[in-house]
Parts: sequence; C-alpha cells; structure tokens
Amino acid sequence: MNDLAKRVLSGDERALAKAISVVENDADNARLLMGILYSHTGNARVMGVTGPPGAGKSTLTDGLVTGFASSGKRVGVIAVDPTSPFSGGAVLGDRIRMRNISPLPGVFVRSMATRGAMGGLTHACMDVIDIMDAAGMDIVLIETVGVGQDEVEIIRVSELNLVVLVPGFGDEIQAIKAGIMEIADIFVINKADRDGVEKLESQLQYLNQLSSRNIPIIRTVAVSNEGVSELGDAVLTTLERHRESESTDDREMERAGYRLQNVLITRFFSVARQNMGETNYETLVSEVASRKIDPYTASDIVIQSLNRARHGN
Amino acid sequence: MNDLAKRVLSGDERALAKAISVVENDADNARLLMGILYSHTGNARVMGVTGPPGAGKSTLTDGLVTGFASSGKRVGVIAVDPTSPFSGGAVLGDRIRMRNISPLPGVFVRSMATRGAMGGLTHACMDVIDIMDAAGMDIVLIETVGVGQDEVEIIRVSELNLVVLVPGFGDEIQAIKAGIMEIADIFVINKADRDGVEKLESQLQYLNQLSSRNIPIIRTVAVSNEGVSELGDAVLTTLERHRESESTDDREMERAGYRLQNVLITRFFSVARQNMGETNYETLVSEVASRKIDPYTASDIVIQSLNRARHGN
Repeated sequence: MNDLAKRVLSGDERALAKAISVVENDADNARLLMGILYSHTGNARVMGVTGPPGAGKSTLTDGLVTGFASSGKRVGVIAVDPTSPFSGGAVLGDRIRMRNISPLPGVFVRSMATRGAMGGLTHACMDVIDIMDAAGMDIVLIETVGVGQDEVEIIRVSELNLVVLVPGFGDEIQAIKAGIMEIADIFVINKADRDGVEKLESQLQYLNQLSSRNIPIIRTVAVSNEGVSELGDAVLTTLERHRESESTDDREMERAGYRLQNVLITRFFSVARQNMGETNYETLVSEVASRKIDPYTASDIVIQSLNRARHGN
Repeated sequence: MNDLAKRVLSGDERALAKAISVVENDADNARLLMGILYSHTGNARVMGVTGPPGAGKSTLTDGLVTGFASSGKRVGVIAVDPTSPFSGGAVLGDRIRMRNISPLPGVFVRSMATRGAMGGLTHACMDVIDIMDAAGMDIVLIETVGVGQDEVEIIRVSELNLVVLVPGFGDEIQAIKAGIMEIADIFVINKADRDGVEKLESQLQYLNQLSSRNIPIIRTVAVSNEGVSELGDAVLTTLERHRESESTDDREMERAGYRLQNVLITRFFSVARQNMGETNYETLVSEVASRKIDPYTASDIVIQSLNRARHGN
C-alpha cells in the first residue's frame, strides 16, 4: 500500500481510481492505506449539492465544475446515484451528463451507487473524500439526491451545501427532510425561468425568517448556464468566509466525530462477532427471534463476551 | 414499569400510548419495559406500506385499516412522517387523513417523525412495533415514504411490504431505492384511473421478469375505495401463505439479527464513552480532526479502552 499511497499523494489519477477500489472492496488494505493518507488530508474544500430528483443537480454540477476547472482548480466529484428500480442500474441520464466533465483536465468523477450499501455508503464515501483530498484536489463535490437519511448523513461531512429546488414542484414532492434544509448554506432555485419562482422564493425567505438565518437564495437556469458563474463565485466566497470564521473548528470536530463513529460501528461488530464466535452470535440471534431472550439482555451478553474473550488472551 | 407492562398486555390503549412515550424518551425504563414485554411478542403480523410522496399511501392505508377493523381485527398504525421543510412539522395532509381512522374501535394510530431521529428512528420504531404486538394488535402497519435509507431500514422488519406507485410520475421521480423494490411483496398501482397505467404495469412486469419473481400487481383508486378490499384480501392471503412457509423462520432471524444490531450500536457507544471518559473521547475526536491520528487507529484506542476499564473493576 506504500507505493499506491505515494502515487495517490503525487496526484496520479490512475492511482486515485485504484485507491478508491481498495477502500470499497478490501477492508484490511483500506486501513493501511488510510493510515498513510489521512495525515495528508484537510486541504480540500468539501461541498455538497443536493435536492429532489429532477431538480437539475447534475447539469448544475457540470456547470460549477467546469467553472472551477477553468480557473485552474482540481475538482473531485462524487456522484451518489440513486439506483433505478426499472433498469437496476443508476439513472442513466445522470451518468451520461456526468461524462461531459470527466475529460476536463484536473477533474476526477466517481459514481457511487446507493444500492446495497445499507449504511456502508457514508463510511466508504468519507474514505473516498479523504483519498481525493490527499491526491491534491482543491474541491471535492458530492452530488446526491436529498431525500433520504443516508444522503443527509453523507453531506453532514461537507463544509458547504447547496440545496437545489425547482419552482412548481409542489410542497409535498419537495418535502425533503428538514435536516437537509437545516444544513443548507445556499438555496439554489434552478429552472428559474419556470412559473412559480416567486412563490418558491418567498417560501424560502419565510424559512429564513423562521430559522433566523439568512441563507442566500440564488436563481439559476443550469441548462443554459444562466446564473451558474454567479453561483460559483458565491460558493467560493462562502467557503472563504467559512475558513476565516471560528465555526470551522466546530465543523471539523463534528466531521471527525462522525467519521470516528462510522469506523467504530464497523470495527465493533467485526471484533465482537470474532471474539464471541460466529456460531454463538447466531445462536443468540435465534434466541431473540424465538423470544427466549429480549434484545437488550442479548446486547449485554455480546458486550460482556467481548471483554471475557480478551481476558483469556 | 411492571404495572405499565401489565396494562399494556391487557390491551389498554392509554397504557400503550404511555409505553410508547417511555421508549421514545427514557432509555433505562425502556429497557425494563421491553424486558417484560418482549416475551409476549411475535403474534402481530407486521406489514409496510411505502412509495414516493404523492402516491396516496395514507388514503390507501385508511382504506385497508378500515377493512381490517370491520372484520374484527385490532390494528396498530405507525405513520412515519417526512417533515415539511416549510412548516417544520409533519406534512399536514397526511396527519389530517390519518385521523379518519383513529376513532375506529381496535385501531391505534401513532405518528413518528423522521426529523432529528438520525439513525435512532429504526430502533424506536422496532420498540413501538413490539409494544403494539404485546398489546394484542393483530396487524401492525408501518406507513413510510419509500425514498430513503431509513425508510428501507424500517420496513426490513416487516413480513409483507406494499410498494405503492402512480402512473405518469416518471421514472426519475419514482427512482426510489432498488432496495425497496427488492422487498416488495405486492406492487400497488394507485390512482389507476390515470393515463400511463398500462405503461407502469408493463414496467413492473418487466421488473418481475428481470428478478425472476412473480410479485402480484394490484390496481387501486384509493380515494374512491376501488380495488382496496381486493388488496386487503391479497394482503391477508399472502400473510397466511408466508406463515405456512419455511421462509418465515428466515425472516424472523433476519429481523432479530437486525433488531439486536440496532440495540448493540446504541449500547456500545454508551458503554464505550462511559468507560473511556467523555473528555478522553472528545480529545480523541479532536486529534482525528487535526489529523494527528487517523480514524482507524483511533477506533482501536476506543475498543481497547473499553477492555482496559473493565479489567480495573
């Protein structure tokens, strides 16, 4: 892993892709690799782009990334794709659009599917952010459909979040989690040439009033690139202001706490099941299933056995 | 908690409401209560109703529950509400509709908001299912917007899941997680008087073909009660078939394993942070934040200190 780490640190894009495969598929080597790379992280600015399906997030991301790249910045993009129920794969349109920016110099795009991740997505995503960071990306942008818990979790690690909304979608369709609205740093009204733009803007202003915050509201028409460079400027300005403010430390602490928590959950289960023995663990589960023991008492047994097994060493 | 448990077991609805408050707000008493109630669970049939916002889940749920109740069944309903970004509360329409069934004899409705739950929702939801089960509900129905990880997680514990879709919504809007499609036991095409019903049905048939499953597809117009009693019959028939088949044991094992896992995560953090000391834990987080230590190495320290602290006892 030493050699791979060196190549990642030199900014080699093929090594970057290889390193991402390692963290996705090989827990032991992931540990070694992250042990080397982690001390080289902390330079990239991490931002999220989120909003309901059909809000035009990918087109907007493309526009922003093109702008950042043309001013000489290196940008890593993590596109968290919802999987289509009909094709079984990622929603095709997004994939095709993402490719428009892939050939740009200094831009590295990686898709991650939510399919089958079951809690592991956030963990893997944070490793990928760190790898991109260590590889010298100036900005890491996470694009995600903002409708579920996992999406909220992922963008909790970012320094700045754009929440993209569309006029005329209706309150119910845009009833994305309050958690997302709370971590919005900039509201983007995309497709702002549509009817209902005034209504949506006044709703957002009302939301600002309710929360006693003053989150900028920016109108764009991503498909014709209107307002996108202004949005890019606002993003860079906000990031600059963040870094100068004291709240950066709080965000870093929150991010680190969250990071540690995710790693701990994975490690805890791996150690507990190993020390207890897989068969004993399964027996315990079957006793919970047959109501011989309640889950709280069962949890005590697992935690105690973790301790007992170590005594014997 | 003994007295409360007895009243829950006798089916007292006020005790049921009180017990739910306990598991939501008081971890220590929740443990005592669940320790008593858990051995009395396993009789209720747990089902999920899920689908994108606007699919008419609440109206459909009302129709189904009214049907079950009129045939003498006791039904518990857990409505997992997405919180509205604009009102800050649950989406109002759903709440109002839910109240139509609340006064029915033998029906107990409880709303749980996703807001702020951050992973704790599934844990609390499973306790609530068990309490309703112990209180003698024949059916526990969980109604949830099927767009996020937490929603998928919740309905993993149910025996039978309805996935409600609507014609003409578009593939992208309905691009709910593949995970949900995979746990569908019945597809419901609601608002089946709309254009596009044939197209949606053929997409679902294609999905059946792809997955080599034969999931029933049932059309309803919930608002005028069309097809709802047929759906109710299909639900009861499928539940009956499930209970007779061997796969019930597998589902019970999966459910118990999942249950134990959720309790363990909560317990582990509580024990680890207590044994290590809150200050030491925060120091470790700050070292991860400042890149002095990587999260994997930090996780070893937490797990070891859990052990060391117990040695000292």
